[in-house]
Amino acid sequence: MEEINKYIQNSSETGGEIYNLIEELFPICRSITGNGVRKTMDIIRKHIPLEIHEVKSGTKVFDWTVPKEWNIKDAYVRNSKGEKVIDFKENNLHVMSYSVPVHKTMTLDELKPYLHTIPGNKDRIPYLTSYYKENWGFSLTQNKFDELCDDDYEVVIDSSLEDGSLTYGEYYIRGELEEEILLTTYTCHPSMCNDNLSGVALITFIAKALSKLKTKYSYRFLFAPETIGSITWLSRNEDKLKNIKMGLVATCVGDAGIKNYKRTKFGDAEIDKIVEKVLMHCGSEYYVADFFPWGSDERQFSSPGINLPVGSLMRSCYGFDGYHTSADNLCYMNKDGLADSYKTYLEVIYTIENNRTYLNLNPKCEPQLGKRGIYRMIGGGSDYPFDEFAMFWVLNMSDGKNSLLDIAYKSGMEFRRIKYAADALYRVELLKLV
Amino acid sequence: MEEINKYIQNSSETGGEIYNLIEELFPICRSITGNGVRKTMDIIRKHIPLEIHEVKSGTKVFDWTVPKEWNIKDAYVRNSKGEKVIDFKENNLHVMSYSVPVHKTMTLDELKPYLHTIPGNKDRIPYLTSYYKENWGFSLTQNKFDELCDDDYEVVIDSSLEDGSLTYGEYYIRGELEEEILLTTYTCHPSMCNDNLSGVALITFIAKALSKLKTKYSYRFLFAPETIGSITWLSRNEDKLKNIKMGLVATCVGDAGIKNYKRTKFGDAEIDKIVEKVLMHCGSEYYVADFFPWGSDERQFSSPGINLPVGSLMRSCYGFDGYHTSADNLCYMNKDGLADSYKTYLEVIYTIENNRTYLNLNPKCEPQLGKRGIYRMIGGGSDYPFDEFAMFWVLNMSDGKNSLLDIAYKSGMEFRRIKYAADALYRVELLKLV
Amino acid sequence: MEEINKYIQNSSETGGEIYNLIEELFPICRSITGNGVRKTMDIIRKHIPLEIHEVKSGTKVFDWTVPKEWNIKDAYVRNSKGEKVIDFKENNLHVMSYSVPVHKTMTLDELKPYLHTIPGNKDRIPYLTSYYKENWGFSLTQNKFDELCDDDYEVVIDSSLEDGSLTYGEYYIRGELEEEILLTTYTCHPSMCNDNLSGVALITFIAKALSKLKTKYSYRFLFAPETIGSITWLSRNEDKLKNIKMGLVATCVGDAGIKNYKRTKFGDAEIDKIVEKVLMHCGSEYYVADFFPWGSDERQFSSPGINLPVGSLMRSCYGFDGYHTSADNLCYMNKDGLADSYKTYLEVIYTIENNRTYLNLNPKCEPQLGKRGIYRMIGGGSDYPFDEFAMFWVLNMSDGKNSLLDIAYKSGMEFRRIKYAADALYRVELLKLV
Repeated sequence: MEEINKYIQNSSETGGEIYNLIEELFPICRSITGNGVRKTMDIIRKHIPLEIHEVKSGTKVFDWTVPKEWNIKDAYVRNSKGEKVIDFKENNLHVMSYSVPVHKTMTLDELKPYLHTIPGNKDRIPYLTSYYKENWGFSLTQNKFDELCDDDYEVVIDSSLEDGSLTYGEYYIRGELEEEILLTTYTCHPSMCNDNLSGVALITFIAKALSKLKTKYSYRFLFAPETIGSITWLSRNEDKLKNIKMGLVATCVGDAGIKNYKRTKFGDAEIDKIVEKVLMHCGSEYYVADFFPWGSDERQFSSPGINLPVGSLMRSCYGFDGYHTSADNLCYMNKDGLADSYKTYLEVIYTIENNRTYLNLNPKCEPQLGKRGIYRMIGGGSDYPFDEFAMFWVLNMSDGKNSLLDIAYKSGMEFRRIKYAADALYRVELLKLV
Repeated sequence: MEEINKYIQNSSETGGEIYNLIEELFPICRSITGNGVRKTMDIIRKHIPLEIHEVKSGTKVFDWTVPKEWNIKDAYVRNSKGEKVIDFKENNLHVMSYSVPVHKTMTLDELKPYLHTIPGNKDRIPYLTSYYKENWGFSLTQNKFDELCDDDYEVVIDSSLEDGSLTYGEYYIRGELEEEILLTTYTCHPSMCNDNLSGVALITFIAKALSKLKTKYSYRFLFAPETIGSITWLSRNEDKLKNIKMGLVATCVGDAGIKNYKRTKFGDAEIDKIVEKVLMHCGSEYYVADFFPWGSDERQFSSPGINLPVGSLMRSCYGFDGYHTSADNLCYMNKDGLADSYKTYLEVIYTIENNRTYLNLNPKCEPQLGKRGIYRMIGGGSDYPFDEFAMFWVLNMSDGKNSLLDIAYKSGMEFRRIKYAADALYRVELLKLV
Repeated sequence: MEEINKYIQNSSETGGEIYNLIEELFPICRSITGNGVRKTMDIIRKHIPLEIHEVKSGTKVFDWTVPKEWNIKDAYVRNSKGEKVIDFKENNLHVMSYSVPVHKTMTLDELKPYLHTIPGNKDRIPYLTSYYKENWGFSLTQNKFDELCDDDYEVVIDSSLEDGSLTYGEYYIRGELEEEILLTTYTCHPSMCNDNLSGVALITFIAKALSKLKTKYSYRFLFAPETIGSITWLSRNEDKLKNIKMGLVATCVGDAGIKNYKRTKFGDAEIDKIVEKVLMHCGSEYYVADFFPWGSDERQFSSPGINLPVGSLMRSCYGFDGYHTSADNLCYMNKDGLADSYKTYLEVIYTIENNRTYLNLNPKCEPQLGKRGIYRMIGGGSDYPFDEFAMFWVLNMSDGKNSLLDIAYKSGMEFRRIKYAADALYRVELLKLV
């Protein structure tokens, strides 16, 4: 898996490509079902051969039921002068997701209970949903709301809520082993970038890179609506769960903030140790949070009956300034941040792929490295052509139980440094793979 | 056990009642045996139906022997002018506890070896005892000592040290379970308040409150002389120890200082976790100390052959300024401190009673809380009518092994918050009691 | 083992004697083999009856082979005026250890690749070796190097590298038990003091002291060349390893720096806890480092196929300013540092010898210490003739599993204080040895 380094080295360039994909997906009005999701999948399929699944409305998925499919053509509020004072075509956040069809004339007072704003941030449109209770509503900025005067308003939501299906995409890469790594992201949010077109685009490019590499583990990429999508996938794939070794949920990975890792519920699972080791040596600031049982789809993967070690590697965590509003737009995206997220995910995968456990074949005292050509020849000086410190750690700890990651932790050294030392020792047959 | 909240809410008022009981008990001259203890028990019995036990002098109790009973009518030192320069009737600390009878005339020089003062605190009378070696003595302030002139002094201790018995009181409340909680305090100190009329009075009122409630656990309240009393009780009740789930020793609970918890010898027993969780959220400063094998009766409960998880929840720990002197008087008592100690003990009992373990009956992914009416209906906003964060913690961790207390610790939330969330989930049949 | 205290009390005087031995050994040119080592052993044998072992060149020792024996009579570089510009007789560091014989005339340019200096410390001669590759070289100060002018130089190394043997010394003291404590030091360094004549001389005097005492454990002292010496010993004594309970490598123990303990690979072995407890109460500053798999012979003892709990108790760790140069000379030695190292090693041995585990024979409640004459007779005061606090800790924790060291840790008390309390309790038959 040294070939992945090529992708890591090109991450800066890839940051731009990820941004371009976000830009292409931005205008589409997505929800947990509907044609917006299908359009999104079509675009992703230009990069990776996503397999599309459609699950019928009414299907029972654990405690939940797949809802009706929602589609929307247009929506507006028009005043008596014929001016659209709220217009879905300007910003699809203006309509509460899953709004039922409406066509009536209402006074301002009648309309007000259906209008939602953020009084404390007067220029942002809030993002609202009502998936499981029939309802309708408009979101708008407080500024626009304040300009509305008494009038008779024509209120139109040209939507449909009918039996249909829930759409999700899946891409599976078979590696040398059946054991698999699960990388998921969610596709249900309309025109917002960090949450979560950034995750969608990042996972697309990670999958694209891995599709060109020979991997030890198998990889599964899941693009599904949040909550109901992961629940649907889990309820249909219980037989596959035994193969999942670890996973990550990708969300909020495109902004300029520092990297932010939310641990699995176990707190010290292999994926936790891997991500934290990568972050420790990443050279920039980061934050690690313990698991909490809300947030994104790690909630479902971590429920006591599923219990998978799934963490979430983000930049600014959900709840950032502008979260779930029109402020989470293309301006909030940062190409360097996207590139760094891409690089970090690849470093994590590099570590997953290379975390082997060896047995020292010369366990009694140190082997004589010099006669094998991997040790300095003049003692006492300070000229160290070989990384003997890392080699000594690997030799000392390779009792068949400690992995290279364990050795990296104990020594305080970067995983790669330990890995390269192990490679050198393996080449001269001082190590055996366990 | 939500009814206990009524007592918690009224703790401020109860603080005053506890103070009144201390005031009533203050003048009595107690020791490890004798009529002062019996008088004390009679007064406590006005509040709770204490069962009184008398254990004969000479009875073997483990390595110890119940000593002779000591009683005292009067004691003084009178100068040649007929003035009582030391008078037991002024303060019963003037006489060393267990002083044998004396009636002789002595010069000052002869008397001096029997006079005890605190040179560094000239206005305090020290509290001294000589239970296990026949001896006699007077305590007085250094100031008074300094005024004594050469003279012939009449020295009188009108005491008796004879076969009799050791008196202790016990009150047992049978709960739903045979498993019991032990709350002990000691009754052997003469006129000193924080050590330990505060403990005696507090436990009286805790027992009074619990006597009116239906409890899950049984409760045993022990009022006995320190050391010899708890040893006596333990030696006579070895068969009961298997039922004791945990316990607390109440002492020094009446002053204005911060709360102070001395852990059990185990350091992380359930009672430790409960008391510390209550303290964490008490809103005021507190201190937690690891176990040390001196102090009060937790020494006996923690001996290697008894090994019970018994901690001690105090305010200013023994050794406070004025400890074991006449300065530990009614002025040292603080009604707010007493009220807060009462409230804290009740909060601990609330937590003991409600610390259940549940099993999530819908373990695969999250259950749909909305369809059960315990979840907000519009997503994305910030209006949270239900405590979904606490509910998510309970659902995520209720695998039949984690108790509500464990969940409270992991989540960082107050125990009550977790408990109420579990109640809500239990009502809609998402949880089963383990 | 209270008799060891006499040696501890005299440590200041012994510091001077250790210094004198260093001074006597300093001029000798040692290497990993050769007559310098033999001469060193002869001098040590004036203090302790060291058994000398000779292992033939060519002997296989695990992955290594005992090298040819190296001896040197003289070496110099002489300019055309007949002046010795580099002279082995002035300082034996001038010749790279294991230099093959040389006799030729060379220009400065031809000679330069064989000259080694420390450019950043112009007045120090570096210490260099080439044990396993035939090579030769001279070390000199940068200052001297800078003075060399173009000339024809006569280059002479009058050495021999021939089949012979590797010499090591061993001294074994049989104690009451077969279980043994291993104390090792290395003898291969030429004229340098802290590294490692300080270790050689210290271990000599520790062995000298123990030879006069009756010990519980057996003690083995090893004086061997670093790396190849300990490997040789280990390969010839595999059957003895099962008896080794713990060990220490003595090196760099003679300077004025603070004490420095490098933990065993286990990190919490008994020797780690003992040394750290001694250091905690030593009254001066110290440092504790986790194990790392380079340094001295603890590397070999800690290899995965040997796995012995061997730490290293030093003062300034290798790598100190002047390390492996001519600056590590007699001026770098400090008699107080030597005395303190000696004292500390003896305190460690005192703790090893006395770390017993007892069973409290009166486990139910506290025993009545007063009736056994080991408790104050008047309660309440502050006169504590007996160390009841330490006795309470011993009684409380002596359940047959906790050692005195465990009790010392839990109580925060010095090991001696706990040991003396246990002695008092043992005398009155309250404890039984486990």
